[in-house]
Amino acid sequence: MVETYIVAFSCKNRPGIVAAASAALFEAGCNILDAQQFDDLETGRFFGRIGFNLINDADDSLVRARLASAFKPFDMEWSLRAQNQKRRVMLLASRWDHCLADILYRWRTGELAMEIAGIISNYPKETYKHLHFSSMPFHYFPVTKETKADQEARIWEAVRTSGADLVVLARYMQILSDDLCRKLAGRCINIHHSFLPGFKGAKPYQQAHARGVKIIGATAHYVTGDLDEGPIIEQDVERISHRDTPEDLVRKGRDIERRVLARAVRAHIEDRVFLNGAKTIVFPE
Amino acid sequence: MVETYIVAFSCKNRPGIVAAASAALFEAGCNILDAQQFDDLETGRFFGRIGFNLINDADDSLVRARLASAFKPFDMEWSLRAQNQKRRVMLLASRWDHCLADILYRWRTGELAMEIAGIISNYPKETYKHLHFSSMPFHYFPVTKETKADQEARIWEAVRTSGADLVVLARYMQILSDDLCRKLAGRCINIHHSFLPGFKGAKPYQQAHARGVKIIGATAHYVTGDLDEGPIIEQDVERISHRDTPEDLVRKGRDIERRVLARAVRAHIEDRVFLNGAKTIVFPE
Amino acid sequence: MVETYIVAFSCKNRPGIVAAASAALFEAGCNILDAQQFDDLETGRFFGRIGFNLINDADDSLVRARLASAFKPFDMEWSLRAQNQKRRVMLLASRWDHCLADILYRWRTGELAMEIAGIISNYPKETYKHLHFSSMPFHYFPVTKETKADQEARIWEAVRTSGADLVVLARYMQILSDDLCRKLAGRCINIHHSFLPGFKGAKPYQQAHARGVKIIGATAHYVTGDLDEGPIIEQDVERISHRDTPEDLVRKGRDIERRVLARAVRAHIEDRVFLNGAKTIVFPE
Amino acid sequence: MVETYIVAFSCKNRPGIVAAASAALFEAGCNILDAQQFDDLETGRFFGRIGFNLINDADDSLVRARLASAFKPFDMEWSLRAQNQKRRVMLLASRWDHCLADILYRWRTGELAMEIAGIISNYPKETYKHLHFSSMPFHYFPVTKETKADQEARIWEAVRTSGADLVVLARYMQILSDDLCRKLAGRCINIHHSFLPGFKGAKPYQQAHARGVKIIGATAHYVTGDLDEGPIIEQDVERISHRDTPEDLVRKGRDIERRVLARAVRAHIEDRVFLNGAKTIVFPE
Repeated sequence: MVETYIVAFSCKNRPGIVAAASAALFEAGCNILDAQQFDDLETGRFFGRIGFNLINDADDSLVRARLASAFKPFDMEWSLRAQNQKRRVMLLASRWDHCLADILYRWRTGELAMEIAGIISNYPKETYKHLHFSSMPFHYFPVTKETKADQEARIWEAVRTSGADLVVLARYMQILSDDLCRKLAGRCINIHHSFLPGFKGAKPYQQAHARGVKIIGATAHYVTGDLDEGPIIEQDVERISHRDTPEDLVRKGRDIERRVLARAVRAHIEDRVFLNGAKTIVFPE
Repeated sequence: MVETYIVAFSCKNRPGIVAAASAALFEAGCNILDAQQFDDLETGRFFGRIGFNLINDADDSLVRARLASAFKPFDMEWSLRAQNQKRRVMLLASRWDHCLADILYRWRTGELAMEIAGIISNYPKETYKHLHFSSMPFHYFPVTKETKADQEARIWEAVRTSGADLVVLARYMQILSDDLCRKLAGRCINIHHSFLPGFKGAKPYQQAHARGVKIIGATAHYVTGDLDEGPIIEQDVERISHRDTPEDLVRKGRDIERRVLARAVRAHIEDRVFLNGAKTIVFPE
Repeated sequence: MVETYIVAFSCKNRPGIVAAASAALFEAGCNILDAQQFDDLETGRFFGRIGFNLINDADDSLVRARLASAFKPFDMEWSLRAQNQKRRVMLLASRWDHCLADILYRWRTGELAMEIAGIISNYPKETYKHLHFSSMPFHYFPVTKETKADQEARIWEAVRTSGADLVVLARYMQILSDDLCRKLAGRCINIHHSFLPGFKGAKPYQQAHARGVKIIGATAHYVTGDLDEGPIIEQDVERISHRDTPEDLVRKGRDIERRVLARAVRAHIEDRVFLNGAKTIVFPE
Repeated sequence: MVETYIVAFSCKNRPGIVAAASAALFEAGCNILDAQQFDDLETGRFFGRIGFNLINDADDSLVRARLASAFKPFDMEWSLRAQNQKRRVMLLASRWDHCLADILYRWRTGELAMEIAGIISNYPKETYKHLHFSSMPFHYFPVTKETKADQEARIWEAVRTSGADLVVLARYMQILSDDLCRKLAGRCINIHHSFLPGFKGAKPYQQAHARGVKIIGATAHYVTGDLDEGPIIEQDVERISHRDTPEDLVRKGRDIERRVLARAVRAHIEDRVFLNGAKTIVFPE
């Protein structure tokens, strides 16, 4: 079977980027399958993602060398990945496990092509007794106001030693410190149970109910210093009515949250998301 | 052809409301076609809407009398309307006419079963030279900061003398004074070109773009003292991407705005909307 | 805590139905919380659903007696149920367990307020080793062309003795015989992995892909003699693009299927669905 | 102001296409703004679209020459267009004018950046008296079974002499002959008032109603020999309920039809649609 590769790249825009990338791939014996490029005129940055395979099973070290030399003049940020070289993902959860259960299910069916580096929770393993964790590492890191710094140090250590490329806050109900947020910046996805920036703060569903909104939503975003304000990756909504109680909104919200989080994780592990200032570029799958 | 009637009613909840209403209709020779009731446990109010026709073309004054006597003990707010007795609607517009054009089109095709009491604009009739106003009254009421009070007095006078049941702000870009808002409370619908309460304030599409949101929306609501904060009647959204410029958002926003406003107006003129504190009850069509 | 009841009823339409029902409830000391009625002018049938509670914790046998006597003249089909008296549901599954896993999850979180009467599969229990069945009965009924009649007899026996009110074909990949379909008519829900009647027959996602459709969907419906043609309860869709391979459609289809099936099951166990000839009435939640 | 150009191209896939195109653009002094490429592994065809502008207002004849020479070895089908060089579009309509009115409105606001080559109808101009056609050519070509061949000859002549790039059947209710379909193949868009291939044949809304579907849709597609079976460009849907009569479906259908047709026309005139066997490639805007 022929292996597929993804090269993702971004730099300050100037003429010749696509020409350089595609010439390098051509010369290294690659066949382009799918390519998307975008030049953000506002921020002046250029973003590209090219999927390709190697003709005659050529060696990929040549591709890497050609791309390195082609990208050098552009001061390019770039990554090259064989599709079967999967991203490692650490999952953080708390009491509510609908997002955790959903991600594990999609991982099991192959829909989320990633390796699970482990699960971290501030609740003990028994909380999830109907979920199968098989042999994946489970870290129970309880937390109180007093132990928060220590607990975060344990989280960071677990993430670091696990070799995780991505951290997913699967409804992890603790607010991360600015320090940990910064350490994880650009590789930590949070799901906000609200259609940001609609209802910030606590109990967004109650706020939505009090306001009589007709649509609720959820937002997946990268974590930055400000937990609920990072660059948005994905959002979705659902229609509600006056019959819906706050409990109904919570229930419908769970459906949206797990769908939105799964799509955001999928986009990230497929190298389709790029940071672009306070925003993201998300190439469609 | 048999005439269809709509009775809409609401009161403080207590047992016996539906029994009283349906007994009255039965005794007056009515056949119920469609009925919806809802008891809001939070606000303690009960809301009902019954569509019916008269058997053997009976006289509707009997229905009215029976309902009046049945509703009396409940201190009921209620209205009875033959479906062919259409609501009169005054349309207010400014420079951007997409909502105005859309409402006129839907009125022309019979989709919005209403009478147009007139059009008020702070722009002259020539602004709309590709729209057909036929013989409907057009009021050109220009406005400046200095003449605002006067202009609003003219608006109010035009609304009052036209016998309008409803005022629709079809992207009327002037902020109504608190005084006029109060006079029109509960019978004036505004379309807010944003997914309220997401982005308040000026230029919501620019705000949405800066924030990199993946979904934009629009909100139709009743006008209260606070122009952009009244009870929400209808909302809808559209998916956007990083390719969309602020201009694209404005364009896509126009599509949502006209759709949302038309649905809200339709719900109102069909007696399907009830005020319920800061919220609304909207029975589905 | 005050118990909530649901009365669901339908009959040939004639004046006085709502009056009779609501008078009976009033006289039996009930307070209506939510009521919906609909008269289908085409089929001439009337459908109603009333949610209510009892004032002063009155006895519900009185309610039942009053309703029975009120409904008698109308030749009414009706049911009365205390909301805490849950429907019993038998789940049938095959190799693909996304719908089964989803229903179990929603049952566990209380979103589907039902009792699980058991699980029947033509695959052994080990197939689902990452799902927790706890103590619920699991019936492994393998099937071949030759043993089909026998196997269906075992299914029917298991359903019958379990006291199940509803059978859910959670992607059960065997075609039920006409005979079993008839036995289960009106109380067996199937999920069809296609936007019926869009693509009938085998491999609807491949058909959809070949045709280059831009939207795919799924349909939940009651089983009748013709397996894929029964009255539709719920449908939903998802947008796709030329980038989606047939495998992508299958994956996206799974998401729609489980969402649509869960909504249909929920509507049924909440007594919100009525058969109406070849169609259904589904009162919104 | 700097002019933006679009080059759209497709050929049998082989390595080096993107490299050739982007090198040619780079050498001709172009700056890529937005690029999308796709290799359909099934049909073996490659599709690309690149938006770019010229640095220092260079001459576009150089670009054209460079592209021509770069594309030659690939037996490329390609087009180069300055964005301000608008497509010319002929509109065909019949009695129902909701699509025609909508397209004219969007053209007027600049949302559809095209030139209107004229309007052809089998109804006289008075049918559309509330629409403003200004000075655009209006062709009244009545048709009967006997005059169909003649009438189609007049249509073809009008299209041909008008220099139209695209013909839009804006709910033109006559079935075009196979001969005319073939002449217009790939440059004629039809709106089908149904979620194809859901309900073929006459009266799809009545079929949908009889079947009790919960979602209706519309489909915009290129015309081929078989009028309702050409490659799909765009589809959309709307949720309906048992309350909706066939008339309600027609009304809701109008909203979907005009939205879907407008999006398809927009995609075509922006060179974002490619024929790919029985399907299309539609690059997102």
